[in-house]
Amino acid sequence: MDITKMLSGVRIDPKASAPIYLQIANSLAAKIKECTLPVGTKLLPERELASLLEVSRTTIINAYRLLEERGLVSTRIGSGTYVANLNVTDQQANDMPWEQLFSPHYKSPLSSLLRSLVATPTADETISFAAGMPDPALYDLKIIEKALVDGNHGLDAADFGYIPIEGYPPFRRSLATWQNSQGIHAAPDNILIVSGSQQGLYLIVKAFVEPRDYVIVESPTYLGAIQVLEAAGARVLCLPQSSSLDLGALEDYLIRYRPKLFYTIPTFQNPTGQVMPLHHRQELIRLAARYRLAIVEDDPYSQLYYGQQPPPSLKSLDTYGGVIYLGTFSKILFPGLRTGWVTAAPQVINRLAQEKQYVDLHSNNLSQIILHTCLADHYLADHLSFVRREYKKRRDTLAGAIRQYCSTHLDFELPEGGFYLWCNVRPPASPVELLRRSAAAGVTFVPGEAFYLNNTESHHIRLCFATLGEDRLNEGIRRLAKIFKSGTANATFPSGTAGRPLI
Amino acid sequence: MDITKMLSGVRIDPKASAPIYLQIANSLAAKIKECTLPVGTKLLPERELASLLEVSRTTIINAYRLLEERGLVSTRIGSGTYVANLNVTDQQANDMPWEQLFSPHYKSPLSSLLRSLVATPTADETISFAAGMPDPALYDLKIIEKALVDGNHGLDAADFGYIPIEGYPPFRRSLATWQNSQGIHAAPDNILIVSGSQQGLYLIVKAFVEPRDYVIVESPTYLGAIQVLEAAGARVLCLPQSSSLDLGALEDYLIRYRPKLFYTIPTFQNPTGQVMPLHHRQELIRLAARYRLAIVEDDPYSQLYYGQQPPPSLKSLDTYGGVIYLGTFSKILFPGLRTGWVTAAPQVINRLAQEKQYVDLHSNNLSQIILHTCLADHYLADHLSFVRREYKKRRDTLAGAIRQYCSTHLDFELPEGGFYLWCNVRPPASPVELLRRSAAAGVTFVPGEAFYLNNTESHHIRLCFATLGEDRLNEGIRRLAKIFKSGTANATFPSGTAGRPLI
Repeated sequence: MDITKMLSGVRIDPKASAPIYLQIANSLAAKIKECTLPVGTKLLPERELASLLEVSRTTIINAYRLLEERGLVSTRIGSGTYVANLNVTDQQANDMPWEQLFSPHYKSPLSSLLRSLVATPTADETISFAAGMPDPALYDLKIIEKALVDGNHGLDAADFGYIPIEGYPPFRRSLATWQNSQGIHAAPDNILIVSGSQQGLYLIVKAFVEPRDYVIVESPTYLGAIQVLEAAGARVLCLPQSSSLDLGALEDYLIRYRPKLFYTIPTFQNPTGQVMPLHHRQELIRLAARYRLAIVEDDPYSQLYYGQQPPPSLKSLDTYGGVIYLGTFSKILFPGLRTGWVTAAPQVINRLAQEKQYVDLHSNNLSQIILHTCLADHYLADHLSFVRREYKKRRDTLAGAIRQYCSTHLDFELPEGGFYLWCNVRPPASPVELLRRSAAAGVTFVPGEAFYLNNTESHHIRLCFATLGEDRLNEGIRRLAKIFKSGTANATFPSGTAGRPLI
Repeated sequence: MDITKMLSGVRIDPKASAPIYLQIANSLAAKIKECTLPVGTKLLPERELASLLEVSRTTIINAYRLLEERGLVSTRIGSGTYVANLNVTDQQANDMPWEQLFSPHYKSPLSSLLRSLVATPTADETISFAAGMPDPALYDLKIIEKALVDGNHGLDAADFGYIPIEGYPPFRRSLATWQNSQGIHAAPDNILIVSGSQQGLYLIVKAFVEPRDYVIVESPTYLGAIQVLEAAGARVLCLPQSSSLDLGALEDYLIRYRPKLFYTIPTFQNPTGQVMPLHHRQELIRLAARYRLAIVEDDPYSQLYYGQQPPPSLKSLDTYGGVIYLGTFSKILFPGLRTGWVTAAPQVINRLAQEKQYVDLHSNNLSQIILHTCLADHYLADHLSFVRREYKKRRDTLAGAIRQYCSTHLDFELPEGGFYLWCNVRPPASPVELLRRSAAAGVTFVPGEAFYLNNTESHHIRLCFATLGEDRLNEGIRRLAKIFKSGTANATFPSGTAGRPLI
């Protein structure tokens, strides 16, 4: 070690504001960086350097420690302090302590379940009654070409640039017209286009719910809604499970908890398929108006009716301006459009738009242009008649297969629309045991407990009939029947609870 | 006004997580609700209350604004702030008291500015140098047909259904390949597709930043980033403005504040157009590795270079895994795709995906399919060569026009890429006064102060040259020159500050 190289130019100014150890460390750091002290150089022992510079040994220890912290030197115990190989130091640093840096976050026991439900069903031989999605074989992808290529609606290149947060203006207008045809009085100002109704829900929760706020939901209900609410720190109140809306229980909650929102799927509910009757809708609106309760009406399925048209939406009955309506094209056209909308009072739309700006500036132009064409050309009505016929057949096929093969183990009420059969599994068979066995036999579905808060036990399973053709529906139920027959779907520990009444 | 009534019991806890303005607003709100401050009471002027409570006037302004938003007070211009008649306010609010139901939220003084910048430029005669977007005339919309209609990549109907949160798998793969060609080592697992890089930033902030966490940014910087950070309650530390990265100041912040993130646009920075030189990038990485600092590298412009290729991205120099890279196709193809991506360590991607699931399940399929085709067919490279030539011409046209018509009032350094000329406005002209006049004369731009925190005064203006053809660029500058000549752009109250040195 050439001592002069180490010492020359090391300046100590006792009057400077920087502590002396820092002055020494900075001088040495400069020498290391300019390679006056190259990689591998052994620095003078602390005691020697201290005496040469006429400072205390602690000062040198601190200086060396700082250099080490900066990765410029490394200490080998019993040997000394050496100029470090910067690259080696970097390699050692190869992992970031990410888990320490992340903000704490809500982890739903269900989130991996939702993730796997959202994933496209695998192409293998498994028959999935699980995913709540339309059948890809029924997507009419011609509308893409019609809207984006034929461009018969006077598209301008600027339509593919930045557009208003609230949505593509022609689409907001055609959607308002369509909403009016459904009995919902809406001007374009009442509409916010969102990137799927999931985003609509997310924005609503962000705009209304602070940690510890109360929100009311039906029970069972859509698990994605529960998750967004819980992730926001909401305290979720479940209405008691019942075959009809329990307005008494609702009012009790309103008085005791002053909830921020009531989240409901009044038409072809997920998972039960139930429809809230007209007189209940009217009473709900009266009650909500009295308490100034904001209602979030999630309505993905009302266009998918297979008999009578369902009663008018809550939004169309809204006398007090408090219903926030959530619509989506994912179930009636195809999910990849990722487009839904919110219809609500302009103050609400404005506030949601402020939140949306941060989340994604505005929703996808291509999808909005396609949907505008669908609405403006009245294409949607034709497509809806087609899919209604098709899904009705599938519902009837699934119901028939269950009656034929599984009538001693499964019962259900035939839903008038939507995607799901909500089946009661008669004891001693258990939904979870059934799923375990059936997954191995190539059939999946969602066990009822996924739709309840707090691991409520459920004797139900949800079967989606929309995604599968008639052969697959029949085959799936035959596979379930085999498992029932074998007795292997029985609960390992009989729960002792009687099956709940049908809902 | 009885001052004691207004002040008694107003508690400010500087250690509380709630911002001080909110604490004050809540105290006052309680008094209003319990009628300690009855309807019609005039509140203390902001300045007086500020000095009594020993807080800044801005804090009181924010508190009053919040009360007003909640309908508890109303402001009469030139007169003061009064406790409102709640009943009247409610009726005016059309039945539902929305403002009372909304969760408190951050309101940026800039948010309406960002909203209007995002909106498409109007088709009238106004020449807008404001919007930071590519010229619609240069969008190649043929790729839509090529990808979605010709469908030469074996599209399946299921590609239009639900897909994984992280992105359309073929697109993640082709994007990983492209990233590798840019020197960024990335497997598909390192990539999350997001709905525009704005969403990437939103998710990162959601995953990392808790209220009162520190985050470092450059100054000036992209205003959308500042807003998302402030909305999350981050305490934003600005690096001192300088012609180059001040690593000393950065290290000082790292030691003193242990910030969660450093947000930077190292290449063709917005708004300055600056490029961080290679040796600064290397030093930054070394420093960040040592302190385990997560860097958010926002990189919308690096493909838009008009001379030398810029230095490698920070992500490609990343030795410690701590760089989170944000990319977007909005500037190089068209914004309506609403598609960007994040490249980062798999733990980060996984956590961001969990957040994204709530926000929109997954990004738009149509755009992902189009972009996959662009990358897989090497179409993007051709398009980039084309737009580089075109934007270079425009940059030179704008620079030439300024030198010809405005050289005594505006100076700038020619940026080597990106979309913007960052011009110093020489006193006595003032950017804000200039904007007021020029808007009336049919020219708009963004005044520099929009890129600073805390209303920092700026003598700069940002001119985007990308959106306008050469004639419009020339015409816009001629209009500005006229205003300069007339002297009407001079500051009404000469600030006395000299123009800052060019950066």
